[in-house]
Amino acid sequence: MEIILAKQAGFCFGVKRAIQMAFDEAEKKGNVTTCTLGPIIHSPQVVKRLEEAGVEAVNDLKKINDGTVIIRSHGVTEAELEEAVDKKLTIVDATCPFVKKAQEYVKSLSEDGYDVVVVGDADHPEVEGLVSYAKGKVYIIASAEEAAHLKNMKKIGIVAQTTQSMENLKSVVAECLPKGSETRVFDTICDATAIRQKEARILAEQVDCMIVIGGYNSANTKRLAEVCKELQPNTYHIEYAGQLDVNWFMNVKRVGVTAGASTPKWLIDEVFKRIQRIAKNKKD
Amino acid sequence: MEIILAKQAGFCFGVKRAIQMAFDEAEKKGNVTTCTLGPIIHSPQVVKRLEEAGVEAVNDLKKINDGTVIIRSHGVTEAELEEAVDKKLTIVDATCPFVKKAQEYVKSLSEDGYDVVVVGDADHPEVEGLVSYAKGKVYIIASAEEAAHLKNMKKIGIVAQTTQSMENLKSVVAECLPKGSETRVFDTICDATAIRQKEARILAEQVDCMIVIGGYNSANTKRLAEVCKELQPNTYHIEYAGQLDVNWFMNVKRVGVTAGASTPKWLIDEVFKRIQRIAKNKKD
Repeated sequence: MEIILAKQAGFCFGVKRAIQMAFDEAEKKGNVTTCTLGPIIHSPQVVKRLEEAGVEAVNDLKKINDGTVIIRSHGVTEAELEEAVDKKLTIVDATCPFVKKAQEYVKSLSEDGYDVVVVGDADHPEVEGLVSYAKGKVYIIASAEEAAHLKNMKKIGIVAQTTQSMENLKSVVAECLPKGSETRVFDTICDATAIRQKEARILAEQVDCMIVIGGYNSANTKRLAEVCKELQPNTYHIEYAGQLDVNWFMNVKRVGVTAGASTPKWLIDEVFKRIQRIAKNKKD
Repeated sequence: MEIILAKQAGFCFGVKRAIQMAFDEAEKKGNVTTCTLGPIIHSPQVVKRLEEAGVEAVNDLKKINDGTVIIRSHGVTEAELEEAVDKKLTIVDATCPFVKKAQEYVKSLSEDGYDVVVVGDADHPEVEGLVSYAKGKVYIIASAEEAAHLKNMKKIGIVAQTTQSMENLKSVVAECLPKGSETRVFDTICDATAIRQKEARILAEQVDCMIVIGGYNSANTKRLAEVCKELQPNTYHIEYAGQLDVNWFMNVKRVGVTAGASTPKWLIDEVFKRIQRIAKNKKD
């Protein structure tokens, strides 16, 4: 059984940077209470390791009263950031620079009198952060179907959750165009997601089985698994090596492995080695 | 034979206004040389009437050295307007206010550092005028296929020829989105064209024959005829009543009549009366 690992599997730039900042803080913290506001990234395994290093994930800012607070890669709301400042906490901002940029666009569009449309998932912390920067009207729109229900506006400003697909952004923009005399779109989509998906698609077509590794709470990993499943029904989304099932590989000649943007290399390595062992056992 | 005249047939707001201004000038001109720079609208019959009233259409500004120049509904290039000012001509600007607005958007987008995309037909005088207001890079794009060949740009500013369809604007915008970090679209499409086409479509489906009246040099009339022909192959584009052919109405029970935005009421009336006579003769 041949095992092919996608080149673009695992950490993107923003996640790598956030993890580095968090573990740096863990190393130098000494006796200072240090925590992340919400999970630093959507990987339960990484969050656990960080906790073991002495940096806990705290979901509610009310429970953080002193020390250092690390802002997660997805960013937080403007109100949370202001509250952290008011509390005189030491703030380490690990917000992905691409997300930061999108937050700034929401703010400036809003200040310039645009009604803002954020293309993304309402439940995602990145989107919750993005909309908080709007001073006027703001709408979270997941799809063209949802956009069709928007009322007419004068000036429409559009930004996208960084992990959105260009196709979805295009279709939402098309729905918005007739609704305003001006439509201003900032392409805040991060290429890393598109490149990872593109590579996964190519790989999924070449194999009999696809393994996608990443947190079940990771939107980009879930999407990656969906993309693969469309082309290869024999696709499994797992968080760690222990979840692999030998039965998945029964009649499999080639298996593809990829991972979401928040999946650390050591988790990918463990999965890869476990599949190697399964392949060896099949041969023996 | 039943004859149904489309409600929205004939002059749009901008054309009506331009004609009014031109005939007003004809009336008060006295001995002052008065001409239009290019045809006032795309209707040879109206241009002829205006000529009979003493206002000629002159295509080249070099040939106009004194008196009054009337700027046609489609607008002219910025250089032509400046030349007319330099020549100290009296300028009567009959540019459609919607076209004027689009010209202003091209200028301000360009001044704000956007590469400008004008969605429209390169040969059309309105588009020739529009692009002349760009200070930096400007591209005339007729379709999504053409837009696909555009190189990446930093900031893309998009305006449309006022008679473009929303569907075409949408598809060009979709092609442009991934090519720039920002895409700013001004919806400069005039509803009159869309409403006229929508009504013509409904009518074309209900009749056995469609007559579309308007100048052969009128882009919006040509498009109107195309739209009708898709639904009713028995569609004829004519300029005036004398072109009607009795053979077109052989087995026809219902005939629909519509007209482009630059077609005067008297031309429509003549056509309508001629078809009434044909219907009467069929009956007798």
